[in-house]
Amino acid sequence: MENQLPLFYGLSFLTAALAFAFAAYLYLWVKKQPTQNERIIEVSALIKAGANTFMRREYRILATFAGVAAVIIFVLLPSPVWSGNILDNVSMALAYLAGTALSAVAGKIGVLVATLSNGRAAEGAQKGIKPAFLIGFRGGAVMGLLVVGCSLFGVAAVLMIVGDSSILLGFSFGASSLALFAKAGGGIFTKTADVSADLTGKVELGIPEDDPRNPAVIADNVGDNVGDVAGMGADLFDSNVAAMASALVIAQSLSGGALANVSMVFCYAILGLLASVIGIATARIGKNGNPTHALNSSTYVTTAVFLVLTALATLAFDGFSWRIWGASATGLLVGVIIGITTDYFTDDTRPIVQRVAHASGSGPAFTVLSGVAYGFISALPAMVGIAVSALVAYQLCDPLGEGYAIFGIAMAAVGMLSIVGMIISNDAYGPIVDNARGLAEMGGLGEETIRTADELDSAGNTVKAVTKGFSIGAAGLTVISLLGAFMSEANTALAEAGKELITGFDIMSPTVFFGVLIGAAIPAVFSAMLILGVDRNAQRMVAEIHRQFNTIVGLREGKTKPEYDKCIDIATTGALRELIPAGLMTIIATVIVGFIGGPMAIGGFLLGNIVSGLLLALFMSNSGGLWDNSKKYIEAGNEGGKGSEAHKSAVIGDTVGDPFKDTAGPSINTQITVVSLVSSLLSSVFVAFSLFG
Amino acid sequence: MENQLPLFYGLSFLTAALAFAFAAYLYLWVKKQPTQNERIIEVSALIKAGANTFMRREYRILATFAGVAAVIIFVLLPSPVWSGNILDNVSMALAYLAGTALSAVAGKIGVLVATLSNGRAAEGAQKGIKPAFLIGFRGGAVMGLLVVGCSLFGVAAVLMIVGDSSILLGFSFGASSLALFAKAGGGIFTKTADVSADLTGKVELGIPEDDPRNPAVIADNVGDNVGDVAGMGADLFDSNVAAMASALVIAQSLSGGALANVSMVFCYAILGLLASVIGIATARIGKNGNPTHALNSSTYVTTAVFLVLTALATLAFDGFSWRIWGASATGLLVGVIIGITTDYFTDDTRPIVQRVAHASGSGPAFTVLSGVAYGFISALPAMVGIAVSALVAYQLCDPLGEGYAIFGIAMAAVGMLSIVGMIISNDAYGPIVDNARGLAEMGGLGEETIRTADELDSAGNTVKAVTKGFSIGAAGLTVISLLGAFMSEANTALAEAGKELITGFDIMSPTVFFGVLIGAAIPAVFSAMLILGVDRNAQRMVAEIHRQFNTIVGLREGKTKPEYDKCIDIATTGALRELIPAGLMTIIATVIVGFIGGPMAIGGFLLGNIVSGLLLALFMSNSGGLWDNSKKYIEAGNEGGKGSEAHKSAVIGDTVGDPFKDTAGPSINTQITVVSLVSSLLSSVFVAFSLFG
Repeated sequence: MENQLPLFYGLSFLTAALAFAFAAYLYLWVKKQPTQNERIIEVSALIKAGANTFMRREYRILATFAGVAAVIIFVLLPSPVWSGNILDNVSMALAYLAGTALSAVAGKIGVLVATLSNGRAAEGAQKGIKPAFLIGFRGGAVMGLLVVGCSLFGVAAVLMIVGDSSILLGFSFGASSLALFAKAGGGIFTKTADVSADLTGKVELGIPEDDPRNPAVIADNVGDNVGDVAGMGADLFDSNVAAMASALVIAQSLSGGALANVSMVFCYAILGLLASVIGIATARIGKNGNPTHALNSSTYVTTAVFLVLTALATLAFDGFSWRIWGASATGLLVGVIIGITTDYFTDDTRPIVQRVAHASGSGPAFTVLSGVAYGFISALPAMVGIAVSALVAYQLCDPLGEGYAIFGIAMAAVGMLSIVGMIISNDAYGPIVDNARGLAEMGGLGEETIRTADELDSAGNTVKAVTKGFSIGAAGLTVISLLGAFMSEANTALAEAGKELITGFDIMSPTVFFGVLIGAAIPAVFSAMLILGVDRNAQRMVAEIHRQFNTIVGLREGKTKPEYDKCIDIATTGALRELIPAGLMTIIATVIVGFIGGPMAIGGFLLGNIVSGLLLALFMSNSGGLWDNSKKYIEAGNEGGKGSEAHKSAVIGDTVGDPFKDTAGPSINTQITVVSLVSSLLSSVFVAFSLFG
Repeated sequence: MENQLPLFYGLSFLTAALAFAFAAYLYLWVKKQPTQNERIIEVSALIKAGANTFMRREYRILATFAGVAAVIIFVLLPSPVWSGNILDNVSMALAYLAGTALSAVAGKIGVLVATLSNGRAAEGAQKGIKPAFLIGFRGGAVMGLLVVGCSLFGVAAVLMIVGDSSILLGFSFGASSLALFAKAGGGIFTKTADVSADLTGKVELGIPEDDPRNPAVIADNVGDNVGDVAGMGADLFDSNVAAMASALVIAQSLSGGALANVSMVFCYAILGLLASVIGIATARIGKNGNPTHALNSSTYVTTAVFLVLTALATLAFDGFSWRIWGASATGLLVGVIIGITTDYFTDDTRPIVQRVAHASGSGPAFTVLSGVAYGFISALPAMVGIAVSALVAYQLCDPLGEGYAIFGIAMAAVGMLSIVGMIISNDAYGPIVDNARGLAEMGGLGEETIRTADELDSAGNTVKAVTKGFSIGAAGLTVISLLGAFMSEANTALAEAGKELITGFDIMSPTVFFGVLIGAAIPAVFSAMLILGVDRNAQRMVAEIHRQFNTIVGLREGKTKPEYDKCIDIATTGALRELIPAGLMTIIATVIVGFIGGPMAIGGFLLGNIVSGLLLALFMSNSGGLWDNSKKYIEAGNEGGKGSEAHKSAVIGDTVGDPFKDTAGPSINTQITVVSLVSSLLSSVFVAFSLFG
């Protein structure tokens, strides 16, 4: 079998370039769309400036963090600088920095385009649903294409230059570090602003949502961008890189056919990107079309194109196995199924949301209790889906030889993430049209336009729930393959140290069990720290809003403008301050468990972390989504409508759900990936020193 | 080494007899206490009748269930009746029935004494805190002594008669079946009544708690008895039997010194019972003493006595190892530490409860969010404690030989449960004095008496949180040893089938992993079903209360009595109806996973179940406890006191917490044990038929 790898490196760069070109085309298209309303231009500029402020400060802190981390990596990894090849250490540190940098660039440009699209989408909504939809969708697609393009380019470049896939873990850790900041920090920012704006505006002062007198209103809109666009993008960049990196680490360790398998990982990633390009390019909506339908059908197009293209590739190339194609297809299909079941629990045309809305009539305690209960139940189908896809992938690929079973699981994750370009496009569409709705209100574009914007926004909410379920599922499968990558790294270190290799992590071993129990507690503590962070930060912002209303003359009457930047500043400072202890806690816990129990305890720790992390992430994302939609369902006139007892209860449920679904829930993915990568990177250290290991 | 086992059988029966005699003495002592107030006698009789109604109907359904289960067991276990020794099948079925029967008898008598003590404690409170405390405590101690006496007697009798410890798993499964009914059914009953009484009484009608006009008030008091006395007793009977059974199964499988180890299990159980007797007999309180202090110090006395007695036994008997003494001591000490940390999160003199009370000032969403967050964090110390005690026990006992490490963990569980007599006494004290407080109010015993009763009640609440943490910790360790017992059972079946033995459950095996993910989702779904059950049932009872107020002339004015029995009937019927699907779901899930993935998947399933079960049980019990105490803290005049915004929010938090802490949270223990035992019992079936096993 000849070496096809150079061909796939070339194709990877070519495809990434295609994605960048297409993104540039969409960017220019969006920019060309007209924008005239002065008020919208003004507010849109404020949102953009606020988002820039946050991202600049976030990236500054991150740069310090990444600098320190890069030095530590240089000194210690892949093996202490004094004992190994210094060039490897330089490569690892540079790969790490490249991971953070590429993710940061993608996030930065994504937010730039999103803040450019929101006002244009608002004005487009004056002309109807079709132009507004296209502006929102194409604005989001820029982010989708950039993320996938950057990850394919980065992974291919690092592997081509250094040739050793374990250096990729450094690149992946860079992506994770950034994702932790972007997702958790953005999540705290967005919910601080959202909760404070609602509490003071809607509840205390009785002014409508998005009222420009509210000092927190711009911060709230900024939050949509930094939390949902930059945060979600960084999260999926991270998952995508981690899935590819772990598949490549395992592929390189396979005896016989390693090169073909490495080629196959790239081939699948390339075809996934092409399928997303086709899905994005063909996204259409009729004049009075249904935007949810349009978003979902592009996802199905992408899925089908990917399955066909990879089947053709399997026919065309030597050494590409149908069994692995099957594993990958299973992963993708399970991802779609997880999305559909998530939709069942969070869509307001389905019974669950309606039941929670109905229970709200008996008081807020019942809103909370029924939401928690259905949130718990909603975790089951996704967990069964992940379990089944892992089992099927393993059984399919096991006959291919030693190590192929875990490779199959890694390829299921790659398959699930193949359409990530499309997923991010759909997801980034949400905050753009959410902003557009606010701008339409502030710009006084009239009832008709607001209604159009509302329809687009509602589609964004529904699709968001689906993409969240999808990204949690993808993270679940990815982390299983990271567990495989960890074992492979630990064994390299054990072999070098002349110790016995690990053949698995036996539950009956007390060190593994020790790790499992502690690992399971970490996502809960991490979530709690983020939730409490939002609480504390919101209290600070509420105090600031009160101060402004009490001291700024004419603010209440709308004659003077509030000091929006003060609120943005509080949200920014607080988010970064609250995030750091949570992030450090997870890293320190990993290090402590590793030093106590060694690689075996870490294996257990990762498992516990994955299992409870998946459960809590699904629970919190879904219950948050269903509370949000129950409130909207009641506001649409059901169960007594706005102002009823049921509505008051539903508002409380929604406030509880906000940090669940937009801060803690989606950050757990990143937390799991960070812990897995820290474990893999430090495996040689844990092999060298541990108490019971 | 000579066989000391007959000696320990004899001592077991003797000690159990001593416990029964002491319980009888305390029963007579309580009965002798004066009771004069007619209103109290009348209401107390209503409570007793209500509790009897529930337990009669519960036991009737259980008898049907147990009958069916016994037939299935007879046909299939330990091996299909057509292929094995029919006598074994008869023994297994009879052991199962004995397990249910002994637990039922203990529960029945416990509730009898509790409903006898409540009125006497109320009247005792007129004379001061000392007599009232003693009545409450001794009434509870009857239950504690009975439970421990019955478990020691039952386990010793079954093993002495059949000689094969695997039959003990049948006995243990009997105890679990009953515990599932008693804990989950009682939990649904008590919270249905509590929530409905509060919603209609305090919220809608503005009448005080325990007002006799409220048709749900008797059901609420009945609930305390059937949920907390019978339910908690059955739960700890179950854990205690399971801990002994798994330790004995493992002890019998040890090569060399098996008999000494079997003897040691009995010896530790005997000494634990003696220590509890001493702790109960020496419980004292000064004339104006602090009841919390009195309860805690008896626990410490019991702990110290147990440690000293087992140390002396280790000196005295051949083949008793210090290492195993160490494992057992570690388990007990970790149990005490878990109790203390639980107290930190739920006691209103500590910062956490006060912070949640403070957050309540910003609205109910913040009560819920901060309670959830601290509930998540509170799981960490307990999980670390269990992890560390398992690790220490394993490391201590591993040098003793093959299999001793797991035996060490089982003995840590036995150690943790050694003081269970004392724990149950403390726990059953709670509902007795809670009832006494209500009776003092209804009997018009005056402010002074009510204040005394309040003080006793508050001590009950604090101690209850501690004992709950303790029982969850004990269940955690027990189930680890049940995992060991499962492996030993599965290997017996594998050896008979001529297949390869299991040496462990490797996380990297896809069937194990498959089991882990699904196992982790089950406690969440189980909890959700119970919570939704309480919701539905409460809605039925609220409708009935409304009906009574609307149709019974003179009820609102207190001239006519409400139809208490209708409410009791709804709570009873609903509790049993809602419980069955939840119980069946867990058993069916186990069977499906076993048929798909065989014993390996079941090993993973048990692990996932333990890990997520512990996490959720700790989270729900602790957040429920801290919401309850935050409300009480505000009612004591803090953060604006009764009627303030903070108080309204805290009431909502408390309502959310009610089914968390008294229905779902504590039922998870039992769910885990049931799943573990079903797995062990069916291991031969899964070995024979499975899809991927």
